[in-house]
Amino acid sequence: MIKQAVIGVLCSLAILTFGILIGHYGITEINSPAPSWVSDVMKDVDESLIEKFLSEVDNIKIQENLRELTKVPHMATTAGDEQTVQFMLKRWQDPETGLDQAWREEYMVYLSFPDPKNPNKVTVVSPSDTVLHTAREKEKPYTADQEDPAVVQPYAAYSPAGHPKGKLVYANQGKPSDYQHLNQTVDLRGTIAITRYGGAGRADKAINAAPYGVIGVLVYTDPLDINDGFMSDVDETYPHSWYMPPSGVERGSFKNLYGDPLTPYLAAKEETYRIPVKNITGIPPIPIQPIGFEDAYILICELGGMKAPAEWQGAFNCTYNFGGPGFKNTSAFKNSDVKLDIYNYEEVKNSSNVMGVIRGSVEPDRYVIYGNHRDSWVHGAIDPSSGTSVMLEMTRVLGQMVKQGKWRPRRSIIFGSWGAEEFGLIGSAEYTEQYFTKLSERTVAYINVDIAVFANATLRASGMPSVQNVVFTAAKQVKAPGLDSTSVYDNWIQYTNRTSPAYGLIPRMGYLSGAGSDYAAFVHYLGITSMDFSYTYDRTKTNARIYPAYHTAYDTFDYASKFIDPGFFSHQAIARTAGNVLIRLADSLVLPLNCSDYAETLESYFFMAVNLYEDQLKAKNISMEPLKHAVASFRSAATHLDQVIRSSDLRNETPLKVRRINDQLMLLDRAFLNPLAFPDKYAYRHVIWASSNAGEPTFPGLADAYANAESSGQSSDWDKVHYHLSVLSQAIGGAADTLVDVI
Amino acid sequence: MIKQAVIGVLCSLAILTFGILIGHYGITEINSPAPSWVSDVMKDVDESLIEKFLSEVDNIKIQENLRELTKVPHMATTAGDEQTVQFMLKRWQDPETGLDQAWREEYMVYLSFPDPKNPNKVTVVSPSDTVLHTAREKEKPYTADQEDPAVVQPYAAYSPAGHPKGKLVYANQGKPSDYQHLNQTVDLRGTIAITRYGGAGRADKAINAAPYGVIGVLVYTDPLDINDGFMSDVDETYPHSWYMPPSGVERGSFKNLYGDPLTPYLAAKEETYRIPVKNITGIPPIPIQPIGFEDAYILICELGGMKAPAEWQGAFNCTYNFGGPGFKNTSAFKNSDVKLDIYNYEEVKNSSNVMGVIRGSVEPDRYVIYGNHRDSWVHGAIDPSSGTSVMLEMTRVLGQMVKQGKWRPRRSIIFGSWGAEEFGLIGSAEYTEQYFTKLSERTVAYINVDIAVFANATLRASGMPSVQNVVFTAAKQVKAPGLDSTSVYDNWIQYTNRTSPAYGLIPRMGYLSGAGSDYAAFVHYLGITSMDFSYTYDRTKTNARIYPAYHTAYDTFDYASKFIDPGFFSHQAIARTAGNVLIRLADSLVLPLNCSDYAETLESYFFMAVNLYEDQLKAKNISMEPLKHAVASFRSAATHLDQVIRSSDLRNETPLKVRRINDQLMLLDRAFLNPLAFPDKYAYRHVIWASSNAGEPTFPGLADAYANAESSGQSSDWDKVHYHLSVLSQAIGGAADTLVDVI
Repeated sequence: MIKQAVIGVLCSLAILTFGILIGHYGITEINSPAPSWVSDVMKDVDESLIEKFLSEVDNIKIQENLRELTKVPHMATTAGDEQTVQFMLKRWQDPETGLDQAWREEYMVYLSFPDPKNPNKVTVVSPSDTVLHTAREKEKPYTADQEDPAVVQPYAAYSPAGHPKGKLVYANQGKPSDYQHLNQTVDLRGTIAITRYGGAGRADKAINAAPYGVIGVLVYTDPLDINDGFMSDVDETYPHSWYMPPSGVERGSFKNLYGDPLTPYLAAKEETYRIPVKNITGIPPIPIQPIGFEDAYILICELGGMKAPAEWQGAFNCTYNFGGPGFKNTSAFKNSDVKLDIYNYEEVKNSSNVMGVIRGSVEPDRYVIYGNHRDSWVHGAIDPSSGTSVMLEMTRVLGQMVKQGKWRPRRSIIFGSWGAEEFGLIGSAEYTEQYFTKLSERTVAYINVDIAVFANATLRASGMPSVQNVVFTAAKQVKAPGLDSTSVYDNWIQYTNRTSPAYGLIPRMGYLSGAGSDYAAFVHYLGITSMDFSYTYDRTKTNARIYPAYHTAYDTFDYASKFIDPGFFSHQAIARTAGNVLIRLADSLVLPLNCSDYAETLESYFFMAVNLYEDQLKAKNISMEPLKHAVASFRSAATHLDQVIRSSDLRNETPLKVRRINDQLMLLDRAFLNPLAFPDKYAYRHVIWASSNAGEPTFPGLADAYANAESSGQSSDWDKVHYHLSVLSQAIGGAADTLVDVI
Repeated sequence: MIKQAVIGVLCSLAILTFGILIGHYGITEINSPAPSWVSDVMKDVDESLIEKFLSEVDNIKIQENLRELTKVPHMATTAGDEQTVQFMLKRWQDPETGLDQAWREEYMVYLSFPDPKNPNKVTVVSPSDTVLHTAREKEKPYTADQEDPAVVQPYAAYSPAGHPKGKLVYANQGKPSDYQHLNQTVDLRGTIAITRYGGAGRADKAINAAPYGVIGVLVYTDPLDINDGFMSDVDETYPHSWYMPPSGVERGSFKNLYGDPLTPYLAAKEETYRIPVKNITGIPPIPIQPIGFEDAYILICELGGMKAPAEWQGAFNCTYNFGGPGFKNTSAFKNSDVKLDIYNYEEVKNSSNVMGVIRGSVEPDRYVIYGNHRDSWVHGAIDPSSGTSVMLEMTRVLGQMVKQGKWRPRRSIIFGSWGAEEFGLIGSAEYTEQYFTKLSERTVAYINVDIAVFANATLRASGMPSVQNVVFTAAKQVKAPGLDSTSVYDNWIQYTNRTSPAYGLIPRMGYLSGAGSDYAAFVHYLGITSMDFSYTYDRTKTNARIYPAYHTAYDTFDYASKFIDPGFFSHQAIARTAGNVLIRLADSLVLPLNCSDYAETLESYFFMAVNLYEDQLKAKNISMEPLKHAVASFRSAATHLDQVIRSSDLRNETPLKVRRINDQLMLLDRAFLNPLAFPDKYAYRHVIWASSNAGEPTFPGLADAYANAESSGQSSDWDKVHYHLSVLSQAIGGAADTLVDVI
């Protein structure tokens, strides 16, 4: 019996095993097992990983990054710049915390420098050629690093060299209207104009002046515009506060177009064709030099002539006069000229971008790009090293997760440390010119963090409307610096908000319509969905145009850690917010880009355009119907696509379906590009976000063309309005066509 | 025992069943079954389906299509055109054999017509104003359909109206060199020039003339160029053969730029901005009119003046003289003028494209587009209805397979029946302008079949080098018409071949560098990989420029079925070859586009450029190194991508991998676009295939810029050579960058 039982059990086991084998292998022939990649391709963003990222971003490490990056001045192409290149490479190539790969890319670009052996001079010269006053050549040092011989003399990059001498006049901000006004009572021929920063672009202060016969321009920062009126370094300004000391001077690029000026639309490689220097546009035609307000004070308060209008008056305790031209008869400078001795020279130099990547696991051919420039004017603790410190901390945390095998993003992430931004966004522009096709085809989004922290009050976020939602999601998950129970989002909405037709009260995001930082080429030339983040001011507490040490020798680690972000908690909040957005863009199954939010902006632009222009356009027989129709098509296509996304079970359908939807979302901004939309500035190709002079919250090309036609009254200019209206309507219609069902 | 045995068996069965259940459901938890879409996304082209397609393409059905399409003349926007629109729609909407969807799209385009109430006239007028000769107004009818009142009078579309009268001169082909030569001995001011077709574009014969003071131009087809010298309709020409009868006149568009002339780069919708008519470029500035060679004979043989050079002589049995200007003193026309009375008028009219689609099953967002124009000058049996008949037979076979549920392509197929091609590729150009972004992003390839059959000798195929391989594959599977044991491929290689470094002796494919048919906007404006097919001549048997009834009233069903393709076997071969390529592009897992074959062409262009230009460029300090480097990068990237494709087991990897590779292949031609490459003709954006005047088998922009600089000798023109060399090198380098590993 036992034997039989044993045999019975063995037989039963054998039969059972046989059954299991049949069940497993026999039937799976019909219903084959899922290949291992099936679960990979369906993975979505992992919230626990985001939490891990947020918790690991370390404010102290950001501080240490900043200390390292600001040891020496690192103006583009200098030895200090090379030191930062090496530092970035070392960090991104670190075997424990680095990226998959990192390398440098060089461009030979046209830069402008002062001559250390012949410093630029600004003097007051009497009729008998006696020098009565000499403006300070370098800023007054308060700390050892400000004495570094590598601190570049304040200058206006791309100002021509020259030695103009003439009577001084005060031209307010150097806007066209300023010179026009001044010219009504003062003969500007042969004069030197002193202007204050603000109101007009740097180069424009000289470009606007030249037609009136002005031969040289000075520019300074009025304490009214930067220091809330404070002027004394004895107890008021830096080193006692964040305010600009009297000798502080804002340096800058005095060049309007972005990118290398000699190789427009081409990457500046060694043998690339370079246009003749004389053909460069958008740079000062006459010498221009920035000075500190302590010198400006001496010059302006001595000016003769009529009193300038109230809105031209600054913070000095004297009346701002136009200039006779020249100084008052009661002044020691009576009959004296102001003389500029500008020795700037131009040079084609090698500038480096440092690039690093984390390869995507599922869609390596989709790129999320994160960038920040590396070059500064002096030590650049805030501009740009606050952003670089943040980027390095972000790459440390992400790099470590990759190296430890804990994470690999679905899509590839490219980090760019751009060179020569201060000279006009050159490194990022050359990068986009070199890789135009590849980047256009594959880039999901570009995230820019230049100056990470202006101040500690609130988030500032700008970008295409389609990123609003992912920015909100990220901002809700990050604690506001210094406020443990308030999120960045909840804090932000208190400072700057709007009422959206779709969502009610929400934080107000800005748009990227200018060329203020390295997002410009991505937005305007490539049509890539972009965004820009920083922490910024409470506008009720200061009127400063920007943080007061901007582009001065005082933008040092000391300044940043004492006056901008003690404890580096705002830096940390930016790293967390931008990093959260980055991970979501890289990892989400469905791209977190919302086309209906884009529709909301297009509608608001459209309604504004109708209000501003429709009556007059009707009178000119130009119909806005095609634009109306296009915006309505866009809205309905966006609603439809949203509905497709909501109603699809994308994790259980072919991965080619989610890819298809993602391609629609990714490429949306590309549809707004038209290289012929702005015939005078081809690098601006995005018809929704191009820069505009009209200052209206509506379509920029339409606004500018309309303003131009209205002012000239010529029918050929009304034709240009009609042309642009067609370009715009067809771009929006074309964008709508990309959102409807693909066939 | 039996009971025990039964129990034992039942127990065993129960255990077995239990085992099977465990094996199937218990273990599949770990190894879940493959979702149903897995096998779908991995499907490749089905060769048996291609065989089925080939066998079902019916020559008799093509013939019946042609009979239907050619019942009445169907010039763009006429009632006959509308009849063909309705016919296409009916066929494509047929529930048994139609497509998934078909619809029409309309554009309001600027066309030019003769006035039926005031026919254009060409007369010889004596000094006393007696009309001594009047050219025939309409072609002589031989069949009833040629008598149709809808047969449009021969005219030069876009010639201005006008009534020039002057002495006649003979200007050969109306090339710049022809007028230059003629002007050396004849004062051309106030003359009428008679020219023959060929050598220069239609409009150029007038554009080139005007600067010399010529006031009107005639154009005719010399029997030497079209009829192998035959001239008599008594026994030689149609209706006795395919040759052009003496009264035959080639109509045509006398406009150089493609697309609607009033809305460049914009879709011609109702409210679209239209440029002023005076701003249209590339049309005749002076009246021009085509005439038959029977009238040309009468005019030319009476001309006085010096004997024209040998290469200006045609087939007439008289000496071709320059003209005194004017006629011989011995002629009855002595001292007479030639007068043109041109009453052409322009009108903005609605032209329709008919569109149809088959939706893709796996990648509906990838389009293979197949197009053919629908409008003709008269009955257009060959141009374009041979192509339309082929397209309709193709859609019948494919549509039926779809409707019967036997097939659905992996990718979407779009069929386009373009309108107003004869006026300058207008329908296809407007389509690409309207859907620019969508088509740029998603189109795998464009296949054009315009005139399907010129003659019965051999295949003619043109396209980007990357399609060579799939064209060869298809051509090998189709029998050559009339040759049961020879393939289209084997027949083709006998007629036109070349030795490829990679493959040895192969058929020679042409390039699509001009704007000869509707592929132009796809190639030059969108950078879409394109191809064009037809069956054509044995060049040893005829010197005809083109089939002799081209654009005449003789291009009828009678002509096509008697003289071009009796039995319609060549039509069938084209339908089979083009359809085979179409199915492969739509169904292949990996797109059948070969980037290494592109590299071969770039190398050959490069070597030619080095031979032609390098020495002289060196002397101008312009280096060809960047171009050399770019071409080498392209070759190595192409080799690498080929290797990735060969070494991957793509049917068993994530479908996102094959999609990635396919995107690289699909978008390759887009990388060659640069809207600033040809500043004078923005619609030409493809730096490899733009049209060129230089006539060298090398990069067109380089060749033209070089020729221009060499002829002017100006350093600014050498700068343009350098500029274009940079554009070209960076485009090729950028293309290479899209072929290397994606990150």
